[in-house]
Amino acid sequence: MRRFFDDRQAGHAPAVELHNGAFVPYAEHSGRLAAIRAAIGPTVTPRDHGEAPILAVHPEPYVAFLKRAHADWRAAGREGDAAGYAWPVARRRALDLARIDAKLGLYSYDGSTPIAEGTWDAAYWSAQTALSALGAVLTGDTAAFALCRPPGHHAGADYLGGYCYLNSAAIAAEAATAAGRRVAILDVDYHHGNGTQDIFYARGDVFFASIHADPRTDYPFFWGHADERGEGAGRGGTLNLPLPQGTGWTAYEPALDQALAAIADFGADLLIVSYGADTYADDPISFFTLQTPNYTAMARRIAAAGLPTMIVMEGGYAVEALGANVEAFLSGF
Amino acid sequence: MRRFFDDRQAGHAPAVELHNGAFVPYAEHSGRLAAIRAAIGPTVTPRDHGEAPILAVHPEPYVAFLKRAHADWRAAGREGDAAGYAWPVARRRALDLARIDAKLGLYSYDGSTPIAEGTWDAAYWSAQTALSALGAVLTGDTAAFALCRPPGHHAGADYLGGYCYLNSAAIAAEAATAAGRRVAILDVDYHHGNGTQDIFYARGDVFFASIHADPRTDYPFFWGHADERGEGAGRGGTLNLPLPQGTGWTAYEPALDQALAAIADFGADLLIVSYGADTYADDPISFFTLQTPNYTAMARRIAAAGLPTMIVMEGGYAVEALGANVEAFLSGF
Ligand SMILES: [Zn+2]
Ligand SMILES: [Zn+2]
Repeated sequence: MRRFFDDRQAGHAPAVELHNGAFVPYAEHSGRLAAIRAAIGPTVTPRDHGEAPILAVHPEPYVAFLKRAHADWRAAGREGDAAGYAWPVARRRALDLARIDAKLGLYSYDGSTPIAEGTWDAAYWSAQTALSALGAVLTGDTAAFALCRPPGHHAGADYLGGYCYLNSAAIAAEAATAAGRRVAILDVDYHHGNGTQDIFYARGDVFFASIHADPRTDYPFFWGHADERGEGAGRGGTLNLPLPQGTGWTAYEPALDQALAAIADFGADLLIVSYGADTYADDPISFFTLQTPNYTAMARRIAAAGLPTMIVMEGGYAVEALGANVEAFLSGF
Repeated sequence: MRRFFDDRQAGHAPAVELHNGAFVPYAEHSGRLAAIRAAIGPTVTPRDHGEAPILAVHPEPYVAFLKRAHADWRAAGREGDAAGYAWPVARRRALDLARIDAKLGLYSYDGSTPIAEGTWDAAYWSAQTALSALGAVLTGDTAAFALCRPPGHHAGADYLGGYCYLNSAAIAAEAATAAGRRVAILDVDYHHGNGTQDIFYARGDVFFASIHADPRTDYPFFWGHADERGEGAGRGGTLNLPLPQGTGWTAYEPALDQALAAIADFGADLLIVSYGADTYADDPISFFTLQTPNYTAMARRIAAAGLPTMIVMEGGYAVEALGANVEAFLSGF
């Protein structure tokens, strides 16, 4: 399996994030990339697909905001990275807001996702990495891995959050759909992939299944509940399987089988996996109890679906085990 | 004019707020109360109207959250005051969330409004103060002043924000409506009264007019734009008059006349004024240029409407001039 990676993704380096009422060191740091690269062997540099496939998912005003936010922050006389302090709870709508703090609130849903000087470039190359791995699968590879950073699955069409700015899985799914494929996305990160869900929530052409910690207790809280099944043309096209904190492989495996059965029922002919290693027992911000060999078992079950599969890297914060966990997963394909 | 005040409102004392990307000292501190009391002379202690008039505006789950939030925060092992870090940007709905951080996100729209140990009691007595001042007007006083703190106009039916937890102006308006009055609310705080607007946005029985800094540049950003006019039965029942930073009395006065004319057209027989002194030239977080005598002129114009008038204290952060500005306003009635 080819592994795609671009080191321009390391240029995104926020210092702190708001978490549980205080500023703490940024957990989604570029040491994650180094740990994974050391474990997975040689990588392929992605080619540049330009902005068009990004703009097919993210509206232009949001992309323009992302590009300019750090410069606007500094122009306002601020130190550090751009981060909001106010967010609309009701009546959110497109508004032509002038102040950087207002724009940050309009386009984000948390205080954990600052925009640093290198954020746009890193997010851009994260998306290009996913598109290049998709290209490998579209042209005959059975499976391909996109070592993406920053992750993407919490980013909606027009909002950032949860360390995510551009939704690489959604951008790849949109591109694959445009290429005529019937796409399913399987999200196995510890956290619900709310951004991906929102992007396809009202669409019948892309199926989204997510196995994740119960949002009653775990981020992102406001999405990923079992009764969220899609709407309009997308009704039935979203499957959420929340599991309680403490879940290990024994309880995880049947949920995975349920998700794969739903994907088969949908008739997908291409699978995109949002893979997060934060389901690992020792993950510092998460509370499932999977062990390294479980990732190989997980991958074998997914591979048994027999679908061309593109894997996008999402979360995973136990850096000392991250490389081993990613390689254990990839080795199952 | 009788001035109503309860010193239990001083028990609300958050230490810091999130503002422009950093934690800064809490601007809405109880020194504001002391400054106003020193200027306005003897006050009347409000009577306790109980929770019923609060629950007529704020749903029970929100009130229960407010009461418990600080204890839940401490039970989660946290220091300091309860404050969120994640907020829903889309698909907000009533959810039975277990974690305090999730509840804080669900019920708030900013990181500037922590819940401290004394917050509930202070907000409760702020509402009682408004209800008692309303009682004076309902029983024949021409005007009455409620020295409320914390302020209320940024709090929606089920959300807090902008230093506000319970919307005292809205609670009084609802009680006055229940008493058979046709109520208009005039909000002259520097910031848009988004909570008050949201509470009455789809109702035809309470008119809301607000003169405030343009939300393109000023908090609360996402509400208060001129095209927000109400919806459904409330269409036309909301009037927003945003003014640019730098506005002084010359440009303010015609906006006030426009608001008062709309209130007359509505046929109000009782007026509630959300009065903020943060339109003052030296206010540290605001950017209008009103001077102390302008508040007397403002009050005279409002009094000339000839309506029984209940005044609720909202913002105002130039503490050294706050008492004089409030008394200048009250002296115009
Ligand atoms: Zn995650
Ligand atoms: Zn104000």
